[in-house]
Amino acid sequence: MSKRSVFFVSDQTGVTAETLGHSLLTQFDGAQYQSLSLPFVATVAQAAEVVQRIDEAGRESGLRPIVFATLVDDQVRAVLRQANALCLDFFAAFLGPLEAELAMPSAHASGRAHGMSNLVSYAARINATNFALANDDGAGPRDYASADVVLVGVSRSGKTPTCLYLALQYGVLAANYPLTDDDLESDELPAALAPYRSKLFGLTIRPDRLQQIRHERRPNSRYASLPQVQSELRAALTLFGRAAIPHLDTTECSIEEIASRILDGQHLERRVRL
Amino acid sequence: MSKRSVFFVSDQTGVTAETLGHSLLTQFDGAQYQSLSLPFVATVAQAAEVVQRIDEAGRESGLRPIVFATLVDDQVRAVLRQANALCLDFFAAFLGPLEAELAMPSAHASGRAHGMSNLVSYAARINATNFALANDDGAGPRDYASADVVLVGVSRSGKTPTCLYLALQYGVLAANYPLTDDDLESDELPAALAPYRSKLFGLTIRPDRLQQIRHERRPNSRYASLPQVQSELRAALTLFGRAAIPHLDTTECSIEEIASRILDGQHLERRVRL
Repeated sequence: MSKRSVFFVSDQTGVTAETLGHSLLTQFDGAQYQSLSLPFVATVAQAAEVVQRIDEAGRESGLRPIVFATLVDDQVRAVLRQANALCLDFFAAFLGPLEAELAMPSAHASGRAHGMSNLVSYAARINATNFALANDDGAGPRDYASADVVLVGVSRSGKTPTCLYLALQYGVLAANYPLTDDDLESDELPAALAPYRSKLFGLTIRPDRLQQIRHERRPNSRYASLPQVQSELRAALTLFGRAAIPHLDTTECSIEEIASRILDGQHLERRVRL
Repeated sequence: MSKRSVFFVSDQTGVTAETLGHSLLTQFDGAQYQSLSLPFVATVAQAAEVVQRIDEAGRESGLRPIVFATLVDDQVRAVLRQANALCLDFFAAFLGPLEAELAMPSAHASGRAHGMSNLVSYAARINATNFALANDDGAGPRDYASADVVLVGVSRSGKTPTCLYLALQYGVLAANYPLTDDDLESDELPAALAPYRSKLFGLTIRPDRLQQIRHERRPNSRYASLPQVQSELRAALTLFGRAAIPHLDTTECSIEEIASRILDGQHLERRVRL
């Protein structure tokens, strides 16, 4: 069966069109798509080429394509609208009501959303990424005093990707502390963490899932054995409970969701806004 | 002057509402906002609380708040609409046309966009993040054969954050190779890169900007001196030219834009879709 084509067309990176488009499409079960991102479509000529591609895809599949667009230029948008497709333009739909509410015209200028109009934001994200890398898995000198949040958990519970996501997406300074066997056998909060109790956030995960993840990393090791995984996770949960560390089971969570739950739970300010 | 409040309300992480909301707001120059994300608003009772917060913010500032929402539940959405605010609901606006086009009802189920419905995607992103970390800055054994792309550039040209972003956002396997003094003095492509010419993508940056970045890292060092920076960047550009490596000046680019330009320039498939 041929798949319906979905296009994400933007005069910039297309991240916005992709994000919203996918959110919408996940609301339709069972539908199959072939999707293509076409970023940096900023001129009438480029838009005309895009229209050709869309129309071709429609002819080939026999199904009318769906186009998610974020285009600020009225002329470029008018060209795109000539495609034989369902064209959902996010800017067209919402700029009007916003102009009315704010009582000002919109700039109709592309390149603003993710441009370098905000050098400070860019620096904050890079800075936070460097911070996450420097404070990853107990490597190097720990700088928990500067951290916005310190993620605590056993090996492979999702700490590193979450710290990096918090850094890149929000400029949040996230460190992570891996719980060692010694930590898990002790009744006390690890000494390195004790002064920063309010910054701690625990990650946990279901034993079967953790076993699977560790097995991919070190097949048939003690590290990846079910008893080891179960005992570590149990000890970590006990620690979280005793020290009153808020925590989240990441088994069914995406990275976005883990990050949002942490920001929300810790009442953390996003340092940058995309 | 009091600032207008902007709310991002979602039954999930709010990433979609934030992304589109910010894209739209950047189209209005000079307007000042106070923004707040309210994720995981999934029940009528939670929505009623949100309405109170919105109305309070409006009373305090004397300016009607703007609400960007992604809510799939009709009842929750109906409650939110009672707020005294300009409420732009992305799902309400676009699910209708999509239902008509696809000739099927939408699921009206929250938690799909970033849920774990797709374990494969999650694994791909984590896997790519681990790959980027393992192949960062020439550390450890290089695995360029498995890479989708290998970023090449001088120290602090933006390689690491870009690799991590490509991994987390798209599941793309991105390695990076830092050009050393030896590499820059040679007339040849570094031996480690030669077999992977088609995967190479160069990053460059304006000398004044690189100097500033390096100065923050190692103040008043030779590493951060203008002559050093200029000479490295010149040699890197020569190398890119001689080896016909496509390259991008990242000075005015956001991380999103660098990533999109690389995917677009290298015709790379996104391995995951958000």
